[in-house]
Amino acid sequence: MGAGQLARMLLESASALGVECVVLAESPGDAAALTAHDVVLGSPRDAGALVRLADVVDVVTFDHELVDLELLAALEQDVTIAPSPRALRFAVDKAAMRRALFDHGLPCPRFEVVEPTEHVDAGQLGGRLGWPLVIKAATGGYDGRGVFVVDDATEATGVLENLAHAGVTALIEERVEIVAELAALVARTPSGAFAAWPVVETAQIDGVCREVLVPGSVSEAQRIEGAALAQRIAEFVDVVGVMAVELFATPTGIVVNELAMRPHNSGHWTQDGAVTSQFENHLRAILDLPLGSTDMVAKEVASVNVFGGDDALDPKASLADALAIPTAHLHLYGKEPRPGRKLGHVNVVGTDPDVVRSTAWQAARALGTPVPDALDKEAR
Amino acid sequence: MGAGQLARMLLESASALGVECVVLAESPGDAAALTAHDVVLGSPRDAGALVRLADVVDVVTFDHELVDLELLAALEQDVTIAPSPRALRFAVDKAAMRRALFDHGLPCPRFEVVEPTEHVDAGQLGGRLGWPLVIKAATGGYDGRGVFVVDDATEATGVLENLAHAGVTALIEERVEIVAELAALVARTPSGAFAAWPVVETAQIDGVCREVLVPGSVSEAQRIEGAALAQRIAEFVDVVGVMAVELFATPTGIVVNELAMRPHNSGHWTQDGAVTSQFENHLRAILDLPLGSTDMVAKEVASVNVFGGDDALDPKASLADALAIPTAHLHLYGKEPRPGRKLGHVNVVGTDPDVVRSTAWQAARALGTPVPDALDKEAR
Repeated sequence: MGAGQLARMLLESASALGVECVVLAESPGDAAALTAHDVVLGSPRDAGALVRLADVVDVVTFDHELVDLELLAALEQDVTIAPSPRALRFAVDKAAMRRALFDHGLPCPRFEVVEPTEHVDAGQLGGRLGWPLVIKAATGGYDGRGVFVVDDATEATGVLENLAHAGVTALIEERVEIVAELAALVARTPSGAFAAWPVVETAQIDGVCREVLVPGSVSEAQRIEGAALAQRIAEFVDVVGVMAVELFATPTGIVVNELAMRPHNSGHWTQDGAVTSQFENHLRAILDLPLGSTDMVAKEVASVNVFGGDDALDPKASLADALAIPTAHLHLYGKEPRPGRKLGHVNVVGTDPDVVRSTAWQAARALGTPVPDALDKEAR
Repeated sequence: MGAGQLARMLLESASALGVECVVLAESPGDAAALTAHDVVLGSPRDAGALVRLADVVDVVTFDHELVDLELLAALEQDVTIAPSPRALRFAVDKAAMRRALFDHGLPCPRFEVVEPTEHVDAGQLGGRLGWPLVIKAATGGYDGRGVFVVDDATEATGVLENLAHAGVTALIEERVEIVAELAALVARTPSGAFAAWPVVETAQIDGVCREVLVPGSVSEAQRIEGAALAQRIAEFVDVVGVMAVELFATPTGIVVNELAMRPHNSGHWTQDGAVTSQFENHLRAILDLPLGSTDMVAKEVASVNVFGGDDALDPKASLADALAIPTAHLHLYGKEPRPGRKLGHVNVVGTDPDVVRSTAWQAARALGTPVPDALDKEAR
């Protein structure tokens, strides 16, 4: 369900495992619709399209969270849905996710939830959680969209009114001091088999992932704590498939930011840097097959995203420049280039963290990726 | 051109590079036709089908050698053909290959060529080359088909008469003493860029490749000599793309057996054991893009082919057993199982040659592959 780059890369792994796939795509130009043998056109929020998909597959899985949980629940009689709509809820609805994590005693930013029908005094909210506040649309956001950092009661009131007007629940959180952004990636089967890749460090700029470093700044203690947190979450949400847990390292310890129940940008490095990729283990998991090894194949891995620059040049036009770097693993998504659009990623594995990072950036830059000012000189 | 497993695995690499592919398939059930987004149905020996393919692509490349070189030559005005029909001739026509290698002073078994219209005294042939003789159909054979080992003049006469009757040129060779079978895999671009993977040891039983060990028994001297031989051949045949040179290690040195100008079974290990796979470098080469690193990612790699057993069980039925081996990389081709049919392969990378080999065999056996008696206990 969904035909973006995640579905496209899942198809590559499915081919090797001999697993036949049908992609539900909104448009024939979607990244995975361009490579899939079998495509059903339709929206994941259209009951008719879901039935057409369910009729021709044994298991339904997801490329994104922009789904209708009630439609999915109705579909469960006819087809296996992995992860289940009950698990997916914690990725679709950030308020439900935050409450469940809190109820299970997992470390979170302090938070409040405001329903669209509720009135709340923004000044008092700030008094309780401290300024600035982070206000998130509980549903519908992705890649930083639907996340607002507000400095005072006036700004907060404006954002809350807009969300209420759109009928969207607001999740309001304290802004924690972020020392580093980390991600824990795990896979779990219906039989309960569980595997965790090493915890990674990610660089998010304006809410969008720009690079992933393995292990980056992640300490041994953080690796163990991150994996343990992710395992507890995987078990209580009863996830099937790959789950990414976005984490903030703060001066006082790790807190959980968000969940994704699918292969995730923070796990693209596994295609070239781990024995088994997140895409292959996602397939194995949803088919209740044994999981493959999540060990790294090298000491250091860097994964850098390729974005369209202001000139919106097609990275294909500069493919030769990027491929001239013999250790760069390119993964392009076949998307039409647009400024700021994520068009691919580059993985580099090796033994020196500075070398793998600068090599991956070199290839990403060759493909037209602008380097954000917020990144340090290694990326330049 | 051709929609077998090689085309299928090429599509996996093409997806990652953002290269769009159209597959010419004889049947919609062919391995690559099952996964390709775009399929043209038709035979590689049908002029109409070739024109339909050439109309929709920029570059034509090959999954097998069962092609019509004259039709291809006629097509060259409209589309880039890589490798060219002039290069392909040395893979399609074993007599032309053997004469060209001999003319360039490359080490070969002693040989004679007998045209279908020619009469030859088999007894004298054996007198000149020694018994037993190896008689090969110069064209049309693959995986051991079209290769005959004959012990005396009566047998030789029978085989030669059959080939003459079929209008096929015979390549007759001395049977060299084979200490080991090796293969040198290289890639070359139209610009002349060249890359060689490490020389591997292969186990062929009844003419069919059963396992590939990297480096196996290959000595440093053999590695250097094999790569140098392959480079000389690549240059004089002016190959574009991947070329495999099958070699015999004999008590008196290496001799060249055959050439293949496409990704090759002896190079499947590169998918998981080399920085760049043969499929990706084949694509890079035919598009005249820089070649990726051919370095190994680990010290030892084993690749074992999966075959249908006498019960013709589908390897999918035992997928869980094979995937329970966490370091086994499975590559299945989606083919209908038949006894003796090649259905996939398993790659294992690591540091201990015995462990990677026995692990790969364990997974192949789990998928129903019979173990040939000719293989030693490591495979059991």
